[in-house]
Amino acid sequence: MRKHLERDISKLKEKLLSLSSMVEDRVYKATKAVIDRDKSLAEAVTGGDEEIDDMEVEIEEECLKVLALNQPVAFDLRFIVAVLKINNDLERIGDLALNIASRARSLADLHKPKSNFDFEEMMIRVKEMLSKGIQSLIHFDANLAKEVCRSDRDVDATHRDAFQYLQEMMKKYPEDLEPLVHYLSVSRILERIADHSTNIAEDVLYMVEGAIVRHKKL
Amino acid sequence: MRKHLERDISKLKEKLLSLSSMVEDRVYKATKAVIDRDKSLAEAVTGGDEEIDDMEVEIEEECLKVLALNQPVAFDLRFIVAVLKINNDLERIGDLALNIASRARSLADLHKPKSNFDFEEMMIRVKEMLSKGIQSLIHFDANLAKEVCRSDRDVDATHRDAFQYLQEMMKKYPEDLEPLVHYLSVSRILERIADHSTNIAEDVLYMVEGAIVRHKKL
Repeated sequence: MRKHLERDISKLKEKLLSLSSMVEDRVYKATKAVIDRDKSLAEAVTGGDEEIDDMEVEIEEECLKVLALNQPVAFDLRFIVAVLKINNDLERIGDLALNIASRARSLADLHKPKSNFDFEEMMIRVKEMLSKGIQSLIHFDANLAKEVCRSDRDVDATHRDAFQYLQEMMKKYPEDLEPLVHYLSVSRILERIADHSTNIAEDVLYMVEGAIVRHKKL
Repeated sequence: MRKHLERDISKLKEKLLSLSSMVEDRVYKATKAVIDRDKSLAEAVTGGDEEIDDMEVEIEEECLKVLALNQPVAFDLRFIVAVLKINNDLERIGDLALNIASRARSLADLHKPKSNFDFEEMMIRVKEMLSKGIQSLIHFDANLAKEVCRSDRDVDATHRDAFQYLQEMMKKYPEDLEPLVHYLSVSRILERIADHSTNIAEDVLYMVEGAIVRHKKL
């Protein structure tokens, strides 16, 4: 029984890792399409969302099977529940990448605004948070999870700066309003992706340090 | 055993219902604070988020206990997993209500823009989707869940209209840019709340008609 469970858990980890790299890749490509005004790259992201949806359903089914057949308890049970929730977050991040891609498509059809916001740094940080969040689950690494939670504050600050800056540019160049509103959205979506990665990290923390968190509540 | 499980399931339903009405109330009040430029109502929403977080943790703990002690299978197992996911959605909707409230606070400090977007109808529809989504779970009602999924298209359309209209107003009244950007955000957040309610409804559909959905995939 224990052996079966261990095998199932490592299979789940593998699948979640592969879903996570698919999602990471899409976030990267969609934001790159915004930066490079690359419509065909944006369109490549728009196709292929089905793959992520299928993978999400597969992982959820897998979790249900493990729960029904192995009836895990204690830490193992907490792990399966964390996978169920994190699976959900990954699918949402996939949807958000789709939203960025659709902004990139619209932006490619509009004139290039005089002012620009460089999303490169924000994109790299958000991608890193996602990848560290999943690594913290795979290795039950509370310190790595805490790192992700801390990074969220930086992304929030960058988003606030972008918001401020883009609003000023809208006032200065009213003719650029439309592309700048799209930039606002891209910044907000990246910030939401960071939020989802933080949720992943919090789930890992709760799983690894569950008792302590509850203790603190008391 | 069966009796225990039934009792636990109805307790879970009760708790989820009470979390859901707390969340609904906050969405309503936060949007009302935007409409009425009511800063003290917005501040009432900002406080009291802890209550929702505590309730979410409590429901998740309850689900873990039911899984560990009763080891449900088949439909019951699918129900518990749906509750875990929906619980998560409700907590996120609570956070989004907080975001609306923070927009309401900023708006109350700014001048009143010459143009206005009436959020009343959008707010009522979004609130209804949330309440119907939870009712569909409580009564295992696939038709009600489908209604929620259909309503999502209307909210998306309203959001698109708001987006278009507010952008035009920004061009027409550049001095109103700041409050109008906040309106854009409120519309987007309401649309996200509708998305979460749709996720809830989809989870119910998957739970009630699981086999059919999978069959369609083949």
